[in-house]
Amino acid sequence: MNSNVIFTNSVHDALAAALDVLQPASVVVLVDENTRRHVLPQLEPGAECVTVMTIPADEEHKTLHTAASVWHHLQESSATRRTVMVNVGGGVVTDLGGFCASTFKRGISFINVPTTLLAAVDASVGGKTGVDFGGLKNEVGTFALPAHVIISTCFFNTLPERELLSGFAEMLKHAMLTGADEVDTLLDLNPCAINWQDHLPMVEASVGVKQRIVEQDPHERGMRRALNLGHTVGHAFESFALQQGRPLSHGHAVACGLVAEAVLSHMVLGFKSSCLYHLAQAVRGLYDPIPLTCDDYPALLKLMKHDKKSHHGELNCTLLRAYGDVAVGVTVDNAGMEAALDIYRDLMGM
Amino acid sequence: MNSNVIFTNSVHDALAAALDVLQPASVVVLVDENTRRHVLPQLEPGAECVTVMTIPADEEHKTLHTAASVWHHLQESSATRRTVMVNVGGGVVTDLGGFCASTFKRGISFINVPTTLLAAVDASVGGKTGVDFGGLKNEVGTFALPAHVIISTCFFNTLPERELLSGFAEMLKHAMLTGADEVDTLLDLNPCAINWQDHLPMVEASVGVKQRIVEQDPHERGMRRALNLGHTVGHAFESFALQQGRPLSHGHAVACGLVAEAVLSHMVLGFKSSCLYHLAQAVRGLYDPIPLTCDDYPALLKLMKHDKKSHHGELNCTLLRAYGDVAVGVTVDNAGMEAALDIYRDLMGM
Repeated sequence: MNSNVIFTNSVHDALAAALDVLQPASVVVLVDENTRRHVLPQLEPGAECVTVMTIPADEEHKTLHTAASVWHHLQESSATRRTVMVNVGGGVVTDLGGFCASTFKRGISFINVPTTLLAAVDASVGGKTGVDFGGLKNEVGTFALPAHVIISTCFFNTLPERELLSGFAEMLKHAMLTGADEVDTLLDLNPCAINWQDHLPMVEASVGVKQRIVEQDPHERGMRRALNLGHTVGHAFESFALQQGRPLSHGHAVACGLVAEAVLSHMVLGFKSSCLYHLAQAVRGLYDPIPLTCDDYPALLKLMKHDKKSHHGELNCTLLRAYGDVAVGVTVDNAGMEAALDIYRDLMGM
Repeated sequence: MNSNVIFTNSVHDALAAALDVLQPASVVVLVDENTRRHVLPQLEPGAECVTVMTIPADEEHKTLHTAASVWHHLQESSATRRTVMVNVGGGVVTDLGGFCASTFKRGISFINVPTTLLAAVDASVGGKTGVDFGGLKNEVGTFALPAHVIISTCFFNTLPERELLSGFAEMLKHAMLTGADEVDTLLDLNPCAINWQDHLPMVEASVGVKQRIVEQDPHERGMRRALNLGHTVGHAFESFALQQGRPLSHGHAVACGLVAEAVLSHMVLGFKSSCLYHLAQAVRGLYDPIPLTCDDYPALLKLMKHDKKSHHGELNCTLLRAYGDVAVGVTVDNAGMEAALDIYRDLMGM
């Protein structure tokens, strides 16, 4: 079964139409403090059987504790299996809301309305839900598809730069999985200076890359690992920065991870050095470097081996022979990874 | 996808064979205090990569809190997506263990080894997992099939009578969904006086009834509601007794619910009165009556309307035209339900 993904800048109408298809007995709208203030008034989901539940906006609240408060709200509002949840927000809201919906009474339908670029191009499609647990991201969750996803670029112009850059890294990843032209088009853009309202087709193309891969492999047993490009190293950067008390946005970590894994691709699979240099230069121009020394390598390698996709303590990466030519499950040894991190630091001016 | 259900009294060998198929990176065995003592030594899952996690044995611990302790154990034992959980116990262990497995890193494989009659004939197949939440049973959970289920009657002779009677009620339900001969065979038995070791084929037949229905409708959208026979009233009895501080076993409540719904079946669908009397007499002989007066009806009706399968506050029952001839989704009004409860009390000698 697939989600019905709608690309539109008329979100209010699209939501009304989606609810009309589902004919829910009642609707619970999940928002965070920001989307409650800025997005909810535009949606006017004002029917009788609608309740609104607000959760805190930050990743640190993407917990079982917050999930319990959502289940509690569902109970209090007499939700049944015919209730529909509408998750309006960034990845915290869509991941946690999807997890709560997919487990409440063993699963009710839900609609995602991503309001950040990252949630639009990454979190809202593909059916991954979850909460963080025991210091690990998305450690408890499900594979569960939203009935509808409504993707709009009309919320993006007011996003902070940090948020735009975070989503842009995932778009870059999708382009790298597709071809050199797609990468060049993106590297010519400044995501913080364009009018996003005009770029709905670009977002649609980027989401399409993910959709096609996910449809082939919904439970991440094979080709879906293509989407892990940049993430073996990126997740380690993200967790490492968190441990150091200097949290990074997901996309910031992924952008740097894409460069590091392009280095590995060059070393292992002959990915062209000219592509690598162009990529590194563009990423350096948009994202602050993550301060790293070779003393940090053991901690980074340990984090990489704890990744959900890792097994037998091996370092497993998705790499590229060229843009659009993907190799999943490439085993890399410690020495190879350390050499790649050396070159990465060099390219990023450290 | 279906579970591989194995009926055997050589549990040790069957578990070894099942693990051999799955080739796990590591194994986490979930037991409760009873099965740790009495069953685990027979299984000897003693390979290097096996850890054992013990949870408390009672329904009151079938909570998110206990689930969190299991996820924590999985993390501490460095479980990966290639880890397999083996749930050894009654319904609390198989439901909660299945929930934890199906959500840890978005799902790892699990094997159920039910050790009570109820878990064998009901909880261990069908893919329902869950924990209780906010005072409601299985309010948070998933549909997730165990990779293997190993069903044996060799644990049943040492079960307390209360446990045997609890499972027997679900066997009775399966027989009622099948035909008059199956019901008569069961009503001639005393589940507390037979040698269960010899009755594996009878359990296999009973589980087969559930399996065939579940395979047709894994997500409970239609025919699976046949399995709800006795449960609209039974769940209300169970919750009511809990509220009164006199908790009943699930099967005890279901046995009484089967009689009450046979009354409804007689009133609404012409189910034969001779069958109804024979059933009521047999249930009275095995199960203590649940004390009820007509003052309790409003509370019972409210509980029935809160059932997971209910919507729009209607009373929805699975009823029988005859043994083996099932009608799902029959709407019953308050007056009809109250009249049935009157007759039920009369038949049960209240």
